[in-house]
Amino acid sequence: MGSQPQFEHPNKAFGWAARDQSGLLSPFNFSRRETNEKDVSLKILFCGICHTDLHMIKNEWGISTYPLVPGHEIVGIVTKVGSKVEKFKVGDKVGVGFMIDSCRSCQNCAENLESYCPRFTATCGAKYRDGTTTYGGYSDSMVVDEHFVVHIPDGLPLEATAPLLCAGITVYSPLRYFGLDKPGMHIGVVGLGGLGHMAVKFAKAFGANVTVISTSPNKEKEARECLGADSFLISRDQDKMQAAVNTLDGIIDTVSAEHPLSPLIGLLKSHGKLVMVGAPAKPLELPVFTLLSGRKIVAGSNIGGMKETQDMLDFAAKHNVKPTIEVIPMDYVNTAMERLLKADVKYRFVIDIGNTLKPSS
Amino acid sequence: MGSQPQFEHPNKAFGWAARDQSGLLSPFNFSRRETNEKDVSLKILFCGICHTDLHMIKNEWGISTYPLVPGHEIVGIVTKVGSKVEKFKVGDKVGVGFMIDSCRSCQNCAENLESYCPRFTATCGAKYRDGTTTYGGYSDSMVVDEHFVVHIPDGLPLEATAPLLCAGITVYSPLRYFGLDKPGMHIGVVGLGGLGHMAVKFAKAFGANVTVISTSPNKEKEARECLGADSFLISRDQDKMQAAVNTLDGIIDTVSAEHPLSPLIGLLKSHGKLVMVGAPAKPLELPVFTLLSGRKIVAGSNIGGMKETQDMLDFAAKHNVKPTIEVIPMDYVNTAMERLLKADVKYRFVIDIGNTLKPSS
Repeated sequence: MGSQPQFEHPNKAFGWAARDQSGLLSPFNFSRRETNEKDVSLKILFCGICHTDLHMIKNEWGISTYPLVPGHEIVGIVTKVGSKVEKFKVGDKVGVGFMIDSCRSCQNCAENLESYCPRFTATCGAKYRDGTTTYGGYSDSMVVDEHFVVHIPDGLPLEATAPLLCAGITVYSPLRYFGLDKPGMHIGVVGLGGLGHMAVKFAKAFGANVTVISTSPNKEKEARECLGADSFLISRDQDKMQAAVNTLDGIIDTVSAEHPLSPLIGLLKSHGKLVMVGAPAKPLELPVFTLLSGRKIVAGSNIGGMKETQDMLDFAAKHNVKPTIEVIPMDYVNTAMERLLKADVKYRFVIDIGNTLKPSS
Repeated sequence: MGSQPQFEHPNKAFGWAARDQSGLLSPFNFSRRETNEKDVSLKILFCGICHTDLHMIKNEWGISTYPLVPGHEIVGIVTKVGSKVEKFKVGDKVGVGFMIDSCRSCQNCAENLESYCPRFTATCGAKYRDGTTTYGGYSDSMVVDEHFVVHIPDGLPLEATAPLLCAGITVYSPLRYFGLDKPGMHIGVVGLGGLGHMAVKFAKAFGANVTVISTSPNKEKEARECLGADSFLISRDQDKMQAAVNTLDGIIDTVSAEHPLSPLIGLLKSHGKLVMVGAPAKPLELPVFTLLSGRKIVAGSNIGGMKETQDMLDFAAKHNVKPTIEVIPMDYVNTAMERLLKADVKYRFVIDIGNTLKPSS
């Protein structure tokens, strides 16, 4: 009975789950643990749809187990707190992102870099330390150790906060860590999806001159007028790419498909930094000589630690940085997944869990 | 007449040059410019043989012009100084490395990063700002703007100083720039040639725990006993490579041949840095996911600026860091090139120019 999702914990929960590799989501009864002494329980109001959700429900990385409740851009209201919770009280507006646990004892954990802890626990589709499966935010409620919960500052609309908790922090963190957050810098952003559009907004908020690099000429107007990009480069336009050689201090590359790195490295000034936040399945070709001649770097980056996630939300509130979203009802989620696959969204779907998730009984 | 190497400048000079792609070196009469007001003239005493010399004499990069006098690890004694020279006087022991000019006005030049100036001038086989060809250190004398000359500190043997001027600075610079110079760090060195053996010595001098990573088991004894390496990993030994995963703060990769990066990136701790100082001709395969999951970086690096080159020599003198060399006479150079091609040298040839270069007339 313990392995039955409905009965393994004392508190009833309800959400939508994928049952197999088709990835189709449907209503699902499960359960949540009690609110332990360091736990925060929340009623979920909104949850963003990240491209990772699409990979996971279809088991594209070969690591999914079913039933799988996706969702790691979670916004809610605290409904209960454990006896030793210090940071939160009932009624607080809170967020939960890609991870809900880490070892808490390694060097990365000690340095607020929990997302680089080798044993961090993902919000959905992973095993929690008690051995039970983690279920994500396409659901009515959640119970999370307070260390992995962040405050949502006043001034940030709740629905628009959801995508900040994964897409936002994933681009904010490398801009900060790699020193690409200085006013006047020239920053490139490759790809204009959920991550890319946030990279443009954060880089602009840091005071950068931002160039969007895209394969799609028809994104130029939007990039300039709606997102505030200063320049737009079509990656296949060799003349313009050549004219832009050695002009960028850094590039945030959000593309998960295979693509050539050499032209991007060429766009960097010496000592420039190309940071990959998308994860192409196959290795990419790395031209070493161009790295050497300009002491350039190619790096990867992966969400952010809890302290930095809170900093990011505070910065976003202060500088009015928020994603461009399309709010959808729960029962639209399968259609949304189809549209996401075609990149037919500007720029992030957010599920209105609070108003549209109907319990089955 | 102006294009005749013997007559284009007023001062006779003599060296050994390659005449064609065979790369065979033979005696060569040419000329050096007058000692202009900011120039230092030197009598050359020693010159190291760098792998780049081998590439250049055989035109393997397709950029060589003949006759070509190689040599950019140059040690000599000042014989004359221009009227506005401030840093040197006759009799000083000096060094000249891979470059002898740069634009002096770009951002990199302003920041003492002349080797990243897009218009830096190589010591041999390049065009100087007066339009004449640059001839390197396999020759009796040289005339160089004082900005591109360094002092050799007391305590450094002159012959052993030569390889510091290219091999030495090429590994010292990335250890410094990428913060891999902290005592107690775990540093890997890939390849144990001219650059690799200097990387081990500098990393040890910085207080690191050094692991040599090599394809050749028979280099272990030498690496440990003569160079002071703490550990030795055979890159094909998958069990030991696996046991060493996530243990290194940084790696200096000196290998110019094609080789897999994925196992090296795997050896890095999170936030670790793989720095390439060898330049494989073809792109290497870059596995992006492992970069992302550990926020690791792959970088390139290329000699160092003049200030840093001086710092490196001062550091080497203070900490008794010097290359392991085989001193050869000038007329052994073609044999030395054959042996270098087979990696049959421990670890750097240095030509005793002062005692063995015989003028033709």
